[in-house]
Amino acid sequence: MSIRVSIDASGGDFGFSVTINAGISALKTYDDLLINFVGDEAGIKNELNKNSSYSNFADRIDVTHASEVINMSDSPSVALRHKKDSSMRIAINLVKNGDADACVSAGNTGALMSIARFVLKTIEGVDRPAIMSAVPTLTGPTHVLDLGANIDSRPSTLLQFAIMGSIAVQNTENIENPSVGLLNVGSEELKGNEKSQETSELLKNSSLNYIGFVEGDDIYKGNIDVIVCDGFEGNIALKASEGVAKMFSYFIKKSFNKNLFTKLVALIAQPVMRDFKSKVDPGKYNGASLLGLKGVVVKSHGNADIDSFLQAIKEAYLEAHAKITDKISTQLTRELEEHK
Amino acid sequence: MSIRVSIDASGGDFGFSVTINAGISALKTYDDLLINFVGDEAGIKNELNKNSSYSNFADRIDVTHASEVINMSDSPSVALRHKKDSSMRIAINLVKNGDADACVSAGNTGALMSIARFVLKTIEGVDRPAIMSAVPTLTGPTHVLDLGANIDSRPSTLLQFAIMGSIAVQNTENIENPSVGLLNVGSEELKGNEKSQETSELLKNSSLNYIGFVEGDDIYKGNIDVIVCDGFEGNIALKASEGVAKMFSYFIKKSFNKNLFTKLVALIAQPVMRDFKSKVDPGKYNGASLLGLKGVVVKSHGNADIDSFLQAIKEAYLEAHAKITDKISTQLTRELEEHK
Repeated sequence: MSIRVSIDASGGDFGFSVTINAGISALKTYDDLLINFVGDEAGIKNELNKNSSYSNFADRIDVTHASEVINMSDSPSVALRHKKDSSMRIAINLVKNGDADACVSAGNTGALMSIARFVLKTIEGVDRPAIMSAVPTLTGPTHVLDLGANIDSRPSTLLQFAIMGSIAVQNTENIENPSVGLLNVGSEELKGNEKSQETSELLKNSSLNYIGFVEGDDIYKGNIDVIVCDGFEGNIALKASEGVAKMFSYFIKKSFNKNLFTKLVALIAQPVMRDFKSKVDPGKYNGASLLGLKGVVVKSHGNADIDSFLQAIKEAYLEAHAKITDKISTQLTRELEEHK
Repeated sequence: MSIRVSIDASGGDFGFSVTINAGISALKTYDDLLINFVGDEAGIKNELNKNSSYSNFADRIDVTHASEVINMSDSPSVALRHKKDSSMRIAINLVKNGDADACVSAGNTGALMSIARFVLKTIEGVDRPAIMSAVPTLTGPTHVLDLGANIDSRPSTLLQFAIMGSIAVQNTENIENPSVGLLNVGSEELKGNEKSQETSELLKNSSLNYIGFVEGDDIYKGNIDVIVCDGFEGNIALKASEGVAKMFSYFIKKSFNKNLFTKLVALIAQPVMRDFKSKVDPGKYNGASLLGLKGVVVKSHGNADIDSFLQAIKEAYLEAHAKITDKISTQLTRELEEHK
């Protein structure tokens, strides 16, 4: 059976030039992948025709016209109520109607979450969907959720995040029984607030491979598969990390640009710096999952290039292929039954 | 008038070898500084005699014997109740008794906070002391508080943090009317939770130069002087940042160590990497302030070297010199009066 992915082709900072070419790369990667590009039909066809590989994959590509585009500045409510013919909305509708198994968008995150929730609805037992993303670490990726979709989450909601994250990682990363940590201000048992304590109790009593509290720096050590937190802390941790990464990159560039000698060193050091960048490149892990919906939805960074948008499509493909929506539903029902 | 700083000479991972030599460097920096080293008297004298500059500063150095040392593994309550003759406790007692204007320790943070609160008490109008630290940014330092001393802080407590941080930065960094931002999950007015909204209202109605919500990545841009947050988020943001920084350093080293060619490149690139490191070195900003106490207390990183412990002593000197304890007290009384 094929995996059908709908792509909000107009979404993101670069639109068609990234989404279409990444889509064609994905078709090269997975033989059983079918793609439905959603957006201005003429624009999509024009971009498709520019790609020399298009003709090889034409039979696995559909194009669905959408007359509107959701902008980065559109509020979620405007996007939801007034742009019913947007590429994002139609791409999600395709999942809802069973015409696609997953959807990928690099558009407005707030709009994507609102529309996806409204159109697809949440899985039974899920209070609110969560956003999960992989981050580069010293070893392999660590997955963190929630990254800002939910603030002031209750312990029972955090338990749902842990279950959803664990299932997604188990199935897309092939990790048997992923380790789950709870983000806190200390790793000792008594640290944190009441919510940390209550959530930790729920996690201990679950069937998850819960390893206890973890701290902010543990995110980047790579020894924990899934790190669970409220969206407030998750968002702040991730943005602070991005800030540090940008500062480091800026100062490395600046030091190499200081004078003629350092510019010469920069030339010589190019392969080393390229190797280094490839290891900390967040684009490698592009593709945040909106977990807890009745359908697979993956959010790409708005400024993703072709390679990193391809990663987001791969994430969508893997989640659809593993039927993680069904698996989350089954596992949640089981956990809820056990703790009735 | 001289500024008298007591130093917990036994504190930190390296004890005397760092604290004593950094102290002597500080005496070279400030002509009106007097230092009281607290710890094992024989050990301190031995270390002093090893330093060739000691004799030049002997008349500005006191040594106070302490028979105990607080370990990193001691719980705050054990440290507080059972180690009354510890170097940390006696260094703080000196401030309490008016024999020192400020105290510096690289010891156990929890113990330092507990003992400082118990011995010195909080300034009237302060619910709880906060920990503030400067972090390197694209431009100059940004000061962030609270970094983990307080979790689940109320909006009125966060306002106190903002006032304390603003006064400290104004006086130690010579910034007229420092800009104050509130850490949140988005910069738009309606973002965040109820607490974000309430705190923001309090800050708007204060006399502070409040610029609104800021996000995690704003910490490292350097365009805000003071960033206020609850200790839960502050701790997570800072630790996540440390995690990213360590990961970057690790991968840079690894890329330079890959093979013979890259090792040669490493040699050539040494001055560039040294320049880069100096810009992102957190040791440059070592010295976290425990604000809100009736006395100046500065916490150094445990693993500080001589240069970075010197930064912590400088911070203590500057805070004592500017009499920030009195200034915080006056400003807090004024703000509380105005909003009665």
